[in-house]
Amino acid sequence: MSKIAFIGLGNMGGPMARNLLRHHQQVTVFDLVPEAVKSLVDAGANGAQTPQEAIADADVVISMLPAASHVKSLYLGNDGLISTVSQTTLLIDCSTIDAQSARQVGSAAADAGVSFIDAPVSGGVAGAAAGTLTFIMGGAENDVARAREVLQFMGANMFHAGELGAGQIAKLCNNMLLSVLMAGTSETLQLAIANGLDPKVMSDIMLQSSGCNWTLQKYNPCPGVMDNAPASNHYAGGFMVKLMNKDLTLAMEAAAQVGAATPMTATAQSLYRLHQQGNGNDVKDFSSIFELFK
Amino acid sequence: MSKIAFIGLGNMGGPMARNLLRHHQQVTVFDLVPEAVKSLVDAGANGAQTPQEAIADADVVISMLPAASHVKSLYLGNDGLISTVSQTTLLIDCSTIDAQSARQVGSAAADAGVSFIDAPVSGGVAGAAAGTLTFIMGGAENDVARAREVLQFMGANMFHAGELGAGQIAKLCNNMLLSVLMAGTSETLQLAIANGLDPKVMSDIMLQSSGCNWTLQKYNPCPGVMDNAPASNHYAGGFMVKLMNKDLTLAMEAAAQVGAATPMTATAQSLYRLHQQGNGNDVKDFSSIFELFK
Amino acid sequence: MSKIAFIGLGNMGGPMARNLLRHHQQVTVFDLVPEAVKSLVDAGANGAQTPQEAIADADVVISMLPAASHVKSLYLGNDGLISTVSQTTLLIDCSTIDAQSARQVGSAAADAGVSFIDAPVSGGVAGAAAGTLTFIMGGAENDVARAREVLQFMGANMFHAGELGAGQIAKLCNNMLLSVLMAGTSETLQLAIANGLDPKVMSDIMLQSSGCNWTLQKYNPCPGVMDNAPASNHYAGGFMVKLMNKDLTLAMEAAAQVGAATPMTATAQSLYRLHQQGNGNDVKDFSSIFELFK
Amino acid sequence: MSKIAFIGLGNMGGPMARNLLRHHQQVTVFDLVPEAVKSLVDAGANGAQTPQEAIADADVVISMLPAASHVKSLYLGNDGLISTVSQTTLLIDCSTIDAQSARQVGSAAADAGVSFIDAPVSGGVAGAAAGTLTFIMGGAENDVARAREVLQFMGANMFHAGELGAGQIAKLCNNMLLSVLMAGTSETLQLAIANGLDPKVMSDIMLQSSGCNWTLQKYNPCPGVMDNAPASNHYAGGFMVKLMNKDLTLAMEAAAQVGAATPMTATAQSLYRLHQQGNGNDVKDFSSIFELFK
Repeated sequence: MSKIAFIGLGNMGGPMARNLLRHHQQVTVFDLVPEAVKSLVDAGANGAQTPQEAIADADVVISMLPAASHVKSLYLGNDGLISTVSQTTLLIDCSTIDAQSARQVGSAAADAGVSFIDAPVSGGVAGAAAGTLTFIMGGAENDVARAREVLQFMGANMFHAGELGAGQIAKLCNNMLLSVLMAGTSETLQLAIANGLDPKVMSDIMLQSSGCNWTLQKYNPCPGVMDNAPASNHYAGGFMVKLMNKDLTLAMEAAAQVGAATPMTATAQSLYRLHQQGNGNDVKDFSSIFELFK
Repeated sequence: MSKIAFIGLGNMGGPMARNLLRHHQQVTVFDLVPEAVKSLVDAGANGAQTPQEAIADADVVISMLPAASHVKSLYLGNDGLISTVSQTTLLIDCSTIDAQSARQVGSAAADAGVSFIDAPVSGGVAGAAAGTLTFIMGGAENDVARAREVLQFMGANMFHAGELGAGQIAKLCNNMLLSVLMAGTSETLQLAIANGLDPKVMSDIMLQSSGCNWTLQKYNPCPGVMDNAPASNHYAGGFMVKLMNKDLTLAMEAAAQVGAATPMTATAQSLYRLHQQGNGNDVKDFSSIFELFK
Repeated sequence: MSKIAFIGLGNMGGPMARNLLRHHQQVTVFDLVPEAVKSLVDAGANGAQTPQEAIADADVVISMLPAASHVKSLYLGNDGLISTVSQTTLLIDCSTIDAQSARQVGSAAADAGVSFIDAPVSGGVAGAAAGTLTFIMGGAENDVARAREVLQFMGANMFHAGELGAGQIAKLCNNMLLSVLMAGTSETLQLAIANGLDPKVMSDIMLQSSGCNWTLQKYNPCPGVMDNAPASNHYAGGFMVKLMNKDLTLAMEAAAQVGAATPMTATAQSLYRLHQQGNGNDVKDFSSIFELFK
Repeated sequence: MSKIAFIGLGNMGGPMARNLLRHHQQVTVFDLVPEAVKSLVDAGANGAQTPQEAIADADVVISMLPAASHVKSLYLGNDGLISTVSQTTLLIDCSTIDAQSARQVGSAAADAGVSFIDAPVSGGVAGAAAGTLTFIMGGAENDVARAREVLQFMGANMFHAGELGAGQIAKLCNNMLLSVLMAGTSETLQLAIANGLDPKVMSDIMLQSSGCNWTLQKYNPCPGVMDNAPASNHYAGGFMVKLMNKDLTLAMEAAAQVGAATPMTATAQSLYRLHQQGNGNDVKDFSSIFELFK
């Protein structure tokens, strides 16, 4: 049993920490919102007043925060965790941020003799609750091995993408490709429909052909084709359009840093931005891009 | 055993007709190139001097031609097969052409009381030789049922996409989505590589994540990731860039006819056209689009 | 004074024929709609019951029709004008159609020893009424010279773009670039506005900088910047979105015929198709694309 | 006569400072490269060992630096100019950086009671040498008025775009639109050429039509059309591809900050990134994008 400090108890972090408790880990939690802390304490966690208090004698620190600025503010600087944490503690940041920031924090940790890995997740709120997240890790082999022992309680798949920051890059690469698959599948199904074809038949054909992709297998964007997909539930729940746009912005930044041409993703990004302008679309599931094409 | 007339013995039609012979069908063949006819006659077919002679007492006519102009010229007009064929004969056109032309020929057939379906294939030259093609059919239910009995000797999958022309639409929809998958996967893998990730590791992660698609499963565009993919064989063989461009032009025409917006496909088309300008690229496998991204 | 036959008296053809009358030309008109003929007869034209009657002793035939199918139907075939017109008559087609069709008609005319040029116009309904159209001509030098004598009564600018069909190509090239200018200028002004800049100030800066283009000079898409632009009149009048989409489809067909990559135009086309889906947008002025960007 | 401190004597800053000297201003210069300082001292400037020394009793400070990091490092922090400069001194940053950084520096200046404006330029190295630059300013009205008195010696046009940062936004907006004009004009001319038209004739037609834009007027991308354009000189000199890519990255960041959809610019960016991959293309003039389209 590990002593785990968990920082950041939002829509993702809350259920993740809860799964650690379910697997009988000793968890100390912190969040800026007292109610979030209280809810976890009621479930068996220890509550802390500050991040510093939370990590006091932790074996592992897990952070799950909204953006790079929060992550840097938590770990870096004179008040940051890196300057106070024990050298035997492993730091695992599960936030989705740009790779450059992840490398910056990891580098500061290395300078202080502390182990740090980036471990962004995919699987969304539902995966966080069910404990079926995918963790995509970047960092040293032995740190990643150590992280697996704890992350297994919250996830179903774990990948080691490469060096520090590679977890973030791999997640962004996957998600930018996902946006391409979703936008491409949506416009294709709409073209089939406009030509009088049944979207279910068209989907079945492509599922067994070279057009096959994850969105057809798990997440058909056309209402009525798949009963349990967000499309058949008014695009409620799922992975929100505004979160896809956040990831696409990070992906395009990663492309800018190496001067890479990513025309398919650039087009998908334009479409998701146009789509988000629509009334209420920002909180719809990202498969609602289907509606942009009439 | 059916009496089958086979018109068009090129790279695709030749091996297709050969598979009919292998399954002991009685096949009469015609092609403008005498050598093509001779080769099939050597394999057991009857040779004909004209299309009219070929179809004389056929139960089924199969045509496999390069473009809509050939198909219309074969079937329509005073000298066309439709005006001379027996009403009990089923016409099956396996060419990839625009849906409008398919509907035009089918409509002329209906006026003459003759059954016609469009049945374009996917699977390429390798699938034609192996008898593992996919047939995507458009037409009346009973005509499609009748066609299955013959097409099964040449293919592994058969789909009924809908009314006349739907086979063409469904094939173009699948192939346009394929171009999006391939271009999107290629730019994603190149971005990962530019950020220091191993393309094999990145591919494995996406195969188990929401970026999963046919190109990662069967046809990885990055040399060395998949031993038997064209990418690992200098992009030789496979589905040529110029053929993908032919299909994309047909797909965009289908979109134009209904005024549909297909921005992802439009971007993929621009990329494939830019790619084809490169020296020798027209006859490379379509996964060579990977090279466009450096 | 020339004897002119004018075929096609719609929104464009009507006012064009009227300008010929204003310049004291002898005009015989035909249209499928009797009211259109009557209106011109009231203005001084001779009315004809058929195209054949209209061209009976014409020096020049001018046609202004909606699409290539009408043009081909008018000129080609056993009943077509080419087979009956005098060899001294000059045929001028002012319709906007694909270059291939223009070349086909021109080639048939040449075979019959008849002179034919393509002469599509720009300037819209307002330019037709004011007699300030631009004619872009394709054909032989001496035919073009002869055409100028008549077209001058309806236009302010005349260009000889090249051989037969070049008029159509040049018009489509200009209009596809116009769509790029309008979409690009619109998204740029919207970005400036979203960053707190005044669109009038931003427009003034670009008018004197390297972003200068016709849409900023004559046709600012942002309401309120230019009093007399359609944008300041609820995007009423002007060049309708559906007509821009028609021209973009023709331009992309011209690109397909030579395998040219036109990614900027392809993006503009996708945006105009998305825009046209909006309620009532098809008849708005094409500068209303500004609204697509929020 | 003003006492002017000039920081940053590169390709742009060097000739700019030289023009101040030509107009008999008293100029003290600093650069990290001693040779750059020496060259200006030889021309009549005072040389400084540090930025602090350069600004000692300056009325105006002008900085011209490569990127935001340099600008922030010069002005901000304990050693930054803002904490030591006299409150009567006006700070003018002519670097092209992101608007957010410009606002950050301006805000720090305001906190210290110091006046600061952003004043990026267009016109390139040639404009810097000739003293014909365009300055696009963001900041308070009276600061801008004061800046004009000095900037006039280096430029031909001065615009006040709006509040702090607006100069940067306006410059990026102009340059992103320029990339759209150049890419769009290039693909259009190539399509015309592929259809047998003369690019000079096509250009002349569009110059007098609705496709008219700055690239046709001043900077035709097709070799041979305009004698004095970079296209007619092997794309040497002018505005380099890599600098256009730098500006496009900044423009896309500005779009990301407000969530704006800029599909035309996104496509142009993809094309410029693809183009820059080509051997030696990074230092060619940006009109060389013409070559990408065959």
